[in-house]
Amino acid sequence: MASTILKRTSCSAMKSMAGSLRIGVTPFRAFAAKVEAGTDIVAAAPDVSLQKARSWDDGVASKFSTTPLKDIFRDRRVVIFGLPGAYTGVCSQQHVPSYKNNIGKFRDEKVDSVICVAVNDPYVLNAWAEKLEAKDAIEFYGDFDGSFHKTLGLEKDLSAALLGPRSHRWSAFVVDGKVKVLNIEENPSDFKVSGAEHILKQI
Amino acid sequence: MASTILKRTSCSAMKSMAGSLRIGVTPFRAFAAKVEAGTDIVAAAPDVSLQKARSWDDGVASKFSTTPLKDIFRDRRVVIFGLPGAYTGVCSQQHVPSYKNNIGKFRDEKVDSVICVAVNDPYVLNAWAEKLEAKDAIEFYGDFDGSFHKTLGLEKDLSAALLGPRSHRWSAFVVDGKVKVLNIEENPSDFKVSGAEHILKQI
Repeated sequence: MASTILKRTSCSAMKSMAGSLRIGVTPFRAFAAKVEAGTDIVAAAPDVSLQKARSWDDGVASKFSTTPLKDIFRDRRVVIFGLPGAYTGVCSQQHVPSYKNNIGKFRDEKVDSVICVAVNDPYVLNAWAEKLEAKDAIEFYGDFDGSFHKTLGLEKDLSAALLGPRSHRWSAFVVDGKVKVLNIEENPSDFKVSGAEHILKQI
Repeated sequence: MASTILKRTSCSAMKSMAGSLRIGVTPFRAFAAKVEAGTDIVAAAPDVSLQKARSWDDGVASKFSTTPLKDIFRDRRVVIFGLPGAYTGVCSQQHVPSYKNNIGKFRDEKVDSVICVAVNDPYVLNAWAEKLEAKDAIEFYGDFDGSFHKTLGLEKDLSAALLGPRSHRWSAFVVDGKVKVLNIEENPSDFKVSGAEHILKQI
């Protein structure tokens, strides 16, 4: 059990995003998330697949294959976190590093996979993961059509930030497909409950 | 008038994409493009804006501003090309370099702007442009919700390649908003008529 205190970083861009996006934002957890502690993600979304982040050439070589949720979650202890999108600034780049930098602690907790998912295509996500030098620690999956997040009720329209349909910022601990812990930020620009240090205390 | 012969490059990924995506592809120009030589783009899409490629921090600083089409096209000689998406491989990376490497010839033809547009958010597009070291020569604009391409009838569903709603691969020479030349590839994986060398011969 990790006891690291979540360091809340000051970040002007994040605060500005919050200021820009709080217009119309619903209160914490007042939106209709369809997932909660106890939900079996695989059963809730039997027809949904994610797309493993990879280069375009690897995508072509794989014949644009996708990965069913059961292959990701069944018989495994998984920590998964979602964020509004690749290349959305220093602050969302802090989200990935928080998991990357704590990967040893997740291994100590017998977590099989730490996964980052975003409503991006797998090629963009791959380029971003490489830029963050995070691919060795974290598995990245695209949800290019948002179907995964929509099924879980975690989709969010971020057109005001020129992003379009994306997702909330969230994290979950999932064992054999069943959600044990779920953290959703009140605002996608917040970074209070979805970081690695927080969920490490919950495992 | 440039006389460079278009070099058709051999590219396994492009060919593979073609093989994968030709299923269901309509014959050349049989789709309902709403733009043609003579079309006034600004008049055809009076409410459409594009999003100048920039970093997330610059996006926040600009309060997520967008650029009306009239500011891009009115009283200007513009060469614009569209492609299916950032990070879609060596081959689409050849599309941008073809314009980057010929930027001097466009200047010789009194072209005010050479523009790359794609159905991507402006932050992803910015990162890709920086990776290609093309920002000094080419202006990059996102069409994050696809509204520009939809208005012109140049949208294309590329879900089979895990991309979702994107665009055809195309190029145009536009003077004061009016389309003088329009080239659309039969297949987004083709690179026969949308490169810089081809349109330089048409200006």
